[in-house]
Amino acid sequence: MSWKENVRQVEPYTPGEQPKDQNVIKLNTNENPYGPSDKVKNYALDFDLLRKYPDPAASDLVNALADYHHVDPAQVFVGVGSDDVLAMAFLTFFNSGHPILFPDISYSFYPVWAELYKIPFKTPALTEDFRIEPSDYLAENGGVVFPNPNAPTARLLPLDAVEKIVAGNPDVVVIVDEAYIDFAPEGSSALSLVDKYENLLVVRTFSKSRSMAGLRIGYAIGQKDLIACMQAVKYSFNSYTMNRPSILYGCASVADDEYFRSTVGKIVATREWFSEELKKLGFLVIPSAANFVFASHSTVPAEEIFREARDHGIFFRYFKQPRIDNYLRITIGTDEEMKAVVSFLLDILHKK
Amino acid sequence: MSWKENVRQVEPYTPGEQPKDQNVIKLNTNENPYGPSDKVKNYALDFDLLRKYPDPAASDLVNALADYHHVDPAQVFVGVGSDDVLAMAFLTFFNSGHPILFPDISYSFYPVWAELYKIPFKTPALTEDFRIEPSDYLAENGGVVFPNPNAPTARLLPLDAVEKIVAGNPDVVVIVDEAYIDFAPEGSSALSLVDKYENLLVVRTFSKSRSMAGLRIGYAIGQKDLIACMQAVKYSFNSYTMNRPSILYGCASVADDEYFRSTVGKIVATREWFSEELKKLGFLVIPSAANFVFASHSTVPAEEIFREARDHGIFFRYFKQPRIDNYLRITIGTDEEMKAVVSFLLDILHKK
Repeated sequence: MSWKENVRQVEPYTPGEQPKDQNVIKLNTNENPYGPSDKVKNYALDFDLLRKYPDPAASDLVNALADYHHVDPAQVFVGVGSDDVLAMAFLTFFNSGHPILFPDISYSFYPVWAELYKIPFKTPALTEDFRIEPSDYLAENGGVVFPNPNAPTARLLPLDAVEKIVAGNPDVVVIVDEAYIDFAPEGSSALSLVDKYENLLVVRTFSKSRSMAGLRIGYAIGQKDLIACMQAVKYSFNSYTMNRPSILYGCASVADDEYFRSTVGKIVATREWFSEELKKLGFLVIPSAANFVFASHSTVPAEEIFREARDHGIFFRYFKQPRIDNYLRITIGTDEEMKAVVSFLLDILHKK
Repeated sequence: MSWKENVRQVEPYTPGEQPKDQNVIKLNTNENPYGPSDKVKNYALDFDLLRKYPDPAASDLVNALADYHHVDPAQVFVGVGSDDVLAMAFLTFFNSGHPILFPDISYSFYPVWAELYKIPFKTPALTEDFRIEPSDYLAENGGVVFPNPNAPTARLLPLDAVEKIVAGNPDVVVIVDEAYIDFAPEGSSALSLVDKYENLLVVRTFSKSRSMAGLRIGYAIGQKDLIACMQAVKYSFNSYTMNRPSILYGCASVADDEYFRSTVGKIVATREWFSEELKKLGFLVIPSAANFVFASHSTVPAEEIFREARDHGIFFRYFKQPRIDNYLRITIGTDEEMKAVVSFLLDILHKK
């Protein structure tokens, strides 16, 4: 016998490429091209307080988010990025023998968490044009989770369809992972349904629209009972997950709504322009409600474009997976970066 | 039916009291009374980089720790405080049907993680004078974990006894939780055994000796195979646990060994002086190798002292548990703080 026999067996997950070279156009991990708010940059951190444990409830940040979203602080759960929040939600809520449901094309971490926590799962197929079909999620199940807008497709599920899934599953928790919702039209978020459905959990992140991927802040909003269950599990895992910089810079970010709205607006405008340019170049572009586009060229294979771009210091994301292996996921950068991308694409497509 | 039926059932863990008032003498959570190194305070964080994901491998910090401890970087695992590291180790290694073993009086999080992950456990009793008896840990088991020095007793298990436990359990992982080892005599750490035993994991934290509880940094050192298993589970949970401030300020802290040694030295000197003063006041003091002492008064009940101290703005830790409910755990603060404590104790004990 050996200690190795009792090791939890998992497929090691490989995170996206993080090129060390700063002189690349990095459009592969859906980061925000603009830095965080000046209120963050100018916040004076009291270093002497680092010797003390942070507030385990991260109350300052929880209160700031509750204020911002007009909910009670007891309805807010914060964690180390939305990955931490989602992992805690899987561990907390998905304990029935029934399979949980998420789309076949979706955030690649869902099956990883399911395997880690030994949760059975099924993956209903998106339609041909990458739409979630709500009726697929009404079969008996142990829970439902999907990103909205979906990743990597960028497609938004309209709120009435989201509600159909939540309303049709009163006996399980439905998690709507809204990592990219700030880039979608107003009124798309399931937050407006939280008061109505006790089984709905909405998850958000500071990594995309708030330019703070490097700080690791995610949060969830739901009714108090749901959040209390997550808190109990979180306190059984690690009392102090949010460090002082996360709590304090996080609050500073929430306090600057003007900057937040202006950078989100810029990215949405760039996305609309860039999508049109891609179409002119012969790409099929899935309508995007996120800070990235998902596109496939009519004649040149995605993998070929992906490799040539990387050789030119332009990083896209490419998934060698059934159904999407002819698509590229391209993060929206600055106007200058996207113009450079268009000019690169024009150049290489011309040579084919 | 309801979603509530499938919620993971846990005893919500309540973290230690964090008084908001800054004018108290806070000796209840084993924090360091001295701030972090000037190298941390003067580190210029590049805020624009917060928009990017941190390095998922936290390589800068891992390399700094590997250099510091003269091990290979592949032998180092970092996490969000040692609680995160320990929780990941429980999830990774304790999957047999046999109960894991830890002392009856020990870190209160061990049974919480065991319940969270549904791991059976047994708790061999410490001796009357709070010693770990190595032979208690040689029965068939699913793994072993203990703090050294133990918490809340502050007692050190000599290295030869630690080795007896590690060597006697080749088929399971033995975790030695060295949160307080920097305050123990040189040569006490099980790190010197890591090359010899593939089943040994040594866990450390920046929260005590490195004055960085507010940053949340913990780490583990073991042989490469052991660390690789933990990495696989960690990457299946959350790729990016260490935020940029943790990685960068953590490196700055490791770079200032002189400051580290000087503050640890001051705390050890204060502890020795304070322990003698307590004895003069009629306390039984368990010999401490940590940054706190565990003490019981010959005539006045611990709970009474605990309450009166709190009324005077002095926070100790009191555990209302069998065997230790007449003991106080008192963190070592500055000389000034400990003099104030002695004078307070002199005062109230006089009145009894």
